[in-house]
Amino acid sequence: MEVGAPDYLAGERQTAEFDVESMKVTWAGSRHALEVSDRMARLVASDPVFRKDNRVMLSRKELFKNTLRKAAHAWKRIVELRLTEEEASRVRFFVDEPAFTDLHWGMFVPAIKGQGTEEQQQKWLPLAYKMQIIGCYAQTELGHGSNVQGLETTATFDPKTDEFIIHSPTLTSSKWWPGGLGKVSTHAVAYARLIVDGQEHGVHGFIVQLRSLDDHMPLPGITVGDIGMKFGSGAYNSMDNGVLRFDNVRIPRDQMLMRVLQVTREGKVIQSDVPRQLIYGTMVFVRQTIVADASCALSRAVCIATRYSAVRRQFGSQNGGPETQVIDYKTQQSRLFPLLASAYAFRFVSEWLKSLYTDVTEKLQRGEFSTLPEAHACTAGLKSITTSATADAIEECRKLCGGHGYLANSGLPELFAVYVPACTYEGDNTVLLLQVARFLVKTVSQLGSGKVPVGTTAYMGRARHLIQCKSNVQSAEDWLNPQVVVEAFEARSLRMSVACAENLAKFPNPEEGFAQLAADLVEAAAAHCQLIVVTKFFEKLQQDIPGKGVKKQLQILSSVYALYILHKHLGDFLSTGSITPKQGALANDQLRSLYSKIRPNAVALVDAFNYTDHYLSSVLGRYDGNVYPTLYEEAWKDPLNDSVVPDGYQEYIRPLLKQQIRNARL
Amino acid sequence: MEVGAPDYLAGERQTAEFDVESMKVTWAGSRHALEVSDRMARLVASDPVFRKDNRVMLSRKELFKNTLRKAAHAWKRIVELRLTEEEASRVRFFVDEPAFTDLHWGMFVPAIKGQGTEEQQQKWLPLAYKMQIIGCYAQTELGHGSNVQGLETTATFDPKTDEFIIHSPTLTSSKWWPGGLGKVSTHAVAYARLIVDGQEHGVHGFIVQLRSLDDHMPLPGITVGDIGMKFGSGAYNSMDNGVLRFDNVRIPRDQMLMRVLQVTREGKVIQSDVPRQLIYGTMVFVRQTIVADASCALSRAVCIATRYSAVRRQFGSQNGGPETQVIDYKTQQSRLFPLLASAYAFRFVSEWLKSLYTDVTEKLQRGEFSTLPEAHACTAGLKSITTSATADAIEECRKLCGGHGYLANSGLPELFAVYVPACTYEGDNTVLLLQVARFLVKTVSQLGSGKVPVGTTAYMGRARHLIQCKSNVQSAEDWLNPQVVVEAFEARSLRMSVACAENLAKFPNPEEGFAQLAADLVEAAAAHCQLIVVTKFFEKLQQDIPGKGVKKQLQILSSVYALYILHKHLGDFLSTGSITPKQGALANDQLRSLYSKIRPNAVALVDAFNYTDHYLSSVLGRYDGNVYPTLYEEAWKDPLNDSVVPDGYQEYIRPLLKQQIRNARL
Repeated sequence: MEVGAPDYLAGERQTAEFDVESMKVTWAGSRHALEVSDRMARLVASDPVFRKDNRVMLSRKELFKNTLRKAAHAWKRIVELRLTEEEASRVRFFVDEPAFTDLHWGMFVPAIKGQGTEEQQQKWLPLAYKMQIIGCYAQTELGHGSNVQGLETTATFDPKTDEFIIHSPTLTSSKWWPGGLGKVSTHAVAYARLIVDGQEHGVHGFIVQLRSLDDHMPLPGITVGDIGMKFGSGAYNSMDNGVLRFDNVRIPRDQMLMRVLQVTREGKVIQSDVPRQLIYGTMVFVRQTIVADASCALSRAVCIATRYSAVRRQFGSQNGGPETQVIDYKTQQSRLFPLLASAYAFRFVSEWLKSLYTDVTEKLQRGEFSTLPEAHACTAGLKSITTSATADAIEECRKLCGGHGYLANSGLPELFAVYVPACTYEGDNTVLLLQVARFLVKTVSQLGSGKVPVGTTAYMGRARHLIQCKSNVQSAEDWLNPQVVVEAFEARSLRMSVACAENLAKFPNPEEGFAQLAADLVEAAAAHCQLIVVTKFFEKLQQDIPGKGVKKQLQILSSVYALYILHKHLGDFLSTGSITPKQGALANDQLRSLYSKIRPNAVALVDAFNYTDHYLSSVLGRYDGNVYPTLYEEAWKDPLNDSVVPDGYQEYIRPLLKQQIRNARL
Repeated sequence: MEVGAPDYLAGERQTAEFDVESMKVTWAGSRHALEVSDRMARLVASDPVFRKDNRVMLSRKELFKNTLRKAAHAWKRIVELRLTEEEASRVRFFVDEPAFTDLHWGMFVPAIKGQGTEEQQQKWLPLAYKMQIIGCYAQTELGHGSNVQGLETTATFDPKTDEFIIHSPTLTSSKWWPGGLGKVSTHAVAYARLIVDGQEHGVHGFIVQLRSLDDHMPLPGITVGDIGMKFGSGAYNSMDNGVLRFDNVRIPRDQMLMRVLQVTREGKVIQSDVPRQLIYGTMVFVRQTIVADASCALSRAVCIATRYSAVRRQFGSQNGGPETQVIDYKTQQSRLFPLLASAYAFRFVSEWLKSLYTDVTEKLQRGEFSTLPEAHACTAGLKSITTSATADAIEECRKLCGGHGYLANSGLPELFAVYVPACTYEGDNTVLLLQVARFLVKTVSQLGSGKVPVGTTAYMGRARHLIQCKSNVQSAEDWLNPQVVVEAFEARSLRMSVACAENLAKFPNPEEGFAQLAADLVEAAAAHCQLIVVTKFFEKLQQDIPGKGVKKQLQILSSVYALYILHKHLGDFLSTGSITPKQGALANDQLRSLYSKIRPNAVALVDAFNYTDHYLSSVLGRYDGNVYPTLYEEAWKDPLNDSVVPDGYQEYIRPLLKQQIRNARL
C-alpha cells in the first residue's frame, strides 16, 4: 500500500480484538519464517519483471516466453543476492506462476536424492543445483496415471553394451503431463518397467537426457512436445506439460536410479539393503507440502472474498444512508467464515504434518517401521480432504464476490484454474480415501487382537466406549468444549468405520465387498480425516500462543471449523447416533453466534496472512479496499479497447446494420 | 461420426436395454423438436466457419472478431435458408459461443415487447428484427447488481425540450456487465431512476442510442468500452460485456418504455391500466429458459464424463488382461450416475415450467393474480437449485475424467467457465432462495387462516399429517415407491419450513429474525425446491412414454435422483424425524443396486441427448470413443509446438545452462 493513500478498510481494521502482528507470526509458524516470507514477498512485488496483471492478455507463446523470462530473472536474483535455499524457495513461491523450475527443484532433484545411490547423487546433483542441466519427472503416461504399476514404457537391459534401452511400445505409453518436459527440460527421471533377461522387475526411475546441451534439439530417438492448452487463460498454460516418446533410446546402465534395486554389469538384479519403506518418508514430505499449499490457496481466496465483502454494499439502505455491507449478511457469513476457519485449520494441520515427517524420518533411520502405515494413511487422507475442500472453497469465494468475481482481475478464476489439479495429482483424491478406508477397516478388524492402534487412529482403541457413548451436550455453550466436540467426531468416525467393517464381512469375497461398498468407505475415510483436522487444531491451542487476543480468535475459529463440518455432515452424526437432532440444532445455534464474534475481526484475520497486493493479484482483494475506481481503470487496458470501433466492424457488423448480409462474403 | 469408422463404444451401446431413438424423442420433448434440433446441429457442425476447436488458442481480439464473423455468418444462413424462428434459435444454440446476438434476441427484443407500448413496439421491433439496429440490456451497474432499486443512473425529464436527460452521476453508477454493450450494440435499453419535477418514480427502461449508425462511433456524451477478460480462455471472452457512462445524454420522451408507467408531455406521471404483475410472466419465462439451459449444460458434461469413463481403464488387470473400465468402479458410479439422473430430472422440470408459463400467461390475461406469487417463488427456487447443482456437476465431471479432464480439449474447463455465471445472473442463487423462504414462511403462517396453499406448495395444506407422519419403509425395495419417497420429501420440507417459522416467531422484530436465521431459511427453501424436482420427475412418469424400455429407464433415474438427494441431505431427513437412520441406510442400499441397473445403459442414456461431436467439442467425449490417438494428434497443434526449440531459448534457457546468468540481460 502506498504511503498516505486512503484505506477504505481502516474502519474494519479498527474493530479487530487481537494483535494482528502476533497473528502473522502464528500463521507463518515463527518470527523468522514471517520475516523471510515478508522480505521475499516485497522483493518480488517490487520487481517489474515479475508483474502478473498482464498475464491473461498474453497468447500462449507470449505467456510461456514471459515465464521463461521470470524463471531466469528469479535465478539471477537468487544468485546475485546469494539467497539461502529457504529464501530462494519463497521467491519462487511469490513469483506465483507454474514453471519448469517447480519440477526441477520439487521433483527431479528429490527423485535423485531419494532414489539415487551416493555415487549417482554426487554425479548428478551438482549439475542440477547449478542448473547446468534442467530436469523433469516423467512418470504419468497417456493411458496411466493413478495405476503406476500399469505404466507401459520399458527399460530393457542389454548386457552386450551395458545399456538400458528405453522404449515406448504403444501410443498410450507416451509420457504425458510431466511439467517442464515439453520445451525446457534437458533431462528427465523417466519411469519404466525394468526388464532384465526377459524378466520384469517392476517400475523404476531412469535418468535420460532428452535434449542436446549445445543447441537444445531433442536427441535421436526422442520425440518431445507440449500437450496443449489447459484450464484457464493463464494458470498452468505457463507450464510446458509435455508428451514424450522413446524409440529405443539407449542410456548407460548407471543411469538407472539404484538406491533400492540394482542391476549389475552381469545382469543380476539385486535388492539393496535400503528399506523399501523409505518411499513413505518421501510421500509424507510431498503430501505435507500439498496440505500447506492448500492452506495458502484457500487463505488467498478467503482474503479476497472477505475484503471485498466488507467493501461491497447491497440492499438495506435506511433513510438514504449507505447500504448494508455484504459481510453483515448471515448468508454471506455462513458461507465465508467456515472457509476462513478452514484456512487456519489446514495451516495448523500442515504444521503438524511437518513434525510428523521429522518423526517418520527419525523412525526410518532407527529401522522402526511399525507406525509407518498409519502415517501414510493419515497424510494420504489429509491431502485428499484439504485439496478437495480448497478447490470447492475457491469457487465458493468467487461466487461470494458476486458478478465481479467472474472478472479475471478478481484473481479468483485464475486461482481456481491453477489450483484444481491438486485434487488429481500425487494421488487422485478418491483413490487416496479408499487407501485410508482400507487402513481403517484393517485397524478395526484387528481391535480384538491386542494390536493397539497408533497415532491418529489411537482413538479407535477406545472403541468399546465410543461405540455406545452418548454426547451430553445440553446447551449451545457445551459445543464450545473441545472434548465434547472431539468425542462426537470420534464416535461418528469410529462407528462409520465399524459399520463398513461389518458390512464388508457380509460379502464372501472381501475384495468384492470392498468394490461394492466403495462409496461408503470413502465417506468413512473422510470422517476420520476431518477428525484429525479438528483434533490438531484443538491441540495447537494447547500451546503457548503469544499476542493479545490471538488465542481467543483461534479458539473461535477452531469451534467454527468443527461445528461447520458437523452441520455439513449432520447425516453422519445422526445416523450413527453420535448426537441427537436436538444437539445438532444446538450446534447450529452456537455456530450462528460464533459468526457474530468473527465479524469484527474478519478483515484483520485475513490481513494476518500477510499477502501483498502483488501476490493476491486481485482488484477485489486490494489491501486498501479501493475496488471500484481500480476496476474502472483496469477495464480500459483490455486489447479490445485499443480502438473504439472494433476490428471486424467493417466485415461483420456494418453489413448486418446496412442489410447487406445476403451479398456479404463472410 | 464418419461412415465406416470404428466405434470403440459399440460394446457399450449393445448392452442398452431400451430404444435410444425413442429416448431421444422424450429428451427433446417431441419428434418435431428432435428433428429440428438434429437438422440444425448438423447444419452448424458441417460448416467450417463454425469450427470451435481453435478457440482457446486465439487472443482476445482474434476470438472476438471470430465471434463477430460467426454471428454474421449465422444470420446470413438464417436469411438464406429462410429458417423459422425455432430453427434460428437452435442454430444460435449450436453455434455455442456467447455473442451479442444472445442479448439482442434474448433481452433487448423481449424488453421492448414486454415494457413498450403498442406504438413503441411498432416503431422499434421491425428495426430490431431485421438487425438494422443491435441492442443490449443495460441494467447492472458497477456498484449494483442484485439490488435493482439501488441503481444510480438517472433519467430526468426536461419539460422544456420534452426530453429525458440520462446521466451517470457517480463512478459506481457506470453500467457494467451488459453483454454486447462494449463494442457492438448501437442501442440499449438502459435502466435508470425516473425523476420528474424533482420527484423520484422508481427504476424504468429507456431506449438509448449509443453509437452512430453511419460509422459506429459512440454518440456525444456516451463513453463505452469492454470491461476486460473474464473466467476461462474462451468462454465469455467472446462477448463484449461492457461499461457505459452517460454524460447528460438527451433522448426524446417517447423512448421511455411506457407500457406500465407513462410520462406525459406536461410532465404528469400516470400509471397505466396494465397490471404490474405482468413482470411475473416474463420472469417465469426467463427462468424456465435458464432451467432448460441447466439441463443442457449438465447433460453435456455428463455425456463427456460417461463416455470417457467407459473408454478409460485403470487398475484391476487380471492375468495380463485389460484393466477395469473406470465406469465399473462404484466410486465412479456413485459420483457420475446421480448427475446423469439430475440431467434428466432438470430436463423434465424445465418442461413442466414451460407449461407453468403458459398457465401463468393465461391467468394474467384473465386478470387472475392470486397464484402468481407461488409460481414466482417456484421458478426462482428452481433457477437457483438447478444452476448451482449444474455448476458443481460440471466440475465434478471434469474430475471424473482424471488428469485429462484438465486439458482444454476435454471441453469441460470451457463448459465450466461459460456456465458458472448462471449462478449469479438473473438473480443471485442465495438471494433467490431467501425469496422462496420468505414465501414458504408466509404460507406456513397462513395455514390456520383458511388460505389454501396452491401449486407446488399444495402439500403444505396437509401440514397436520406431514408434521407427525412416520415413513413406513421397511425394506430397500420400499424406496422404489414414488409415494413413499414424495412423502418423506414433503415431511422434510414442511418440517424445515415450520421450524423456521417457529424460530422466527421468537424474535421480537421479524426482519431481525429473518436476517439472523437466513442460513436456515436457505436450507428450507432448497428442500422445498428439491421436492418439486422429485415430484415433477415422478409426475412425468405418469404420462404415456413410448419406446421399448424407455419408461423403465426413467423410473430408475427418477429413483436415483431422489435417493441421491436424500443421501446427500440425510441430516435434514433425520433431524426432522422424517425418516429413521435405518431407513436412511436402506435408501443407500437401494441406491447402490440402482447404479448396477444403470451401468449397462449408461452410454446409451447419454447418446439419447443426441449431441454432435461438434457441439460437445470434447476429445474425451467423442461419440466413437477414439480418445487417445486424437489427444496425441491434437497436442501437436498447440502454437508452442511450432518449433522444437522454444522461442525464448536463446535469451532465457541457454544462459542458465551455460552458467552465464550473472552477465545476462534479462
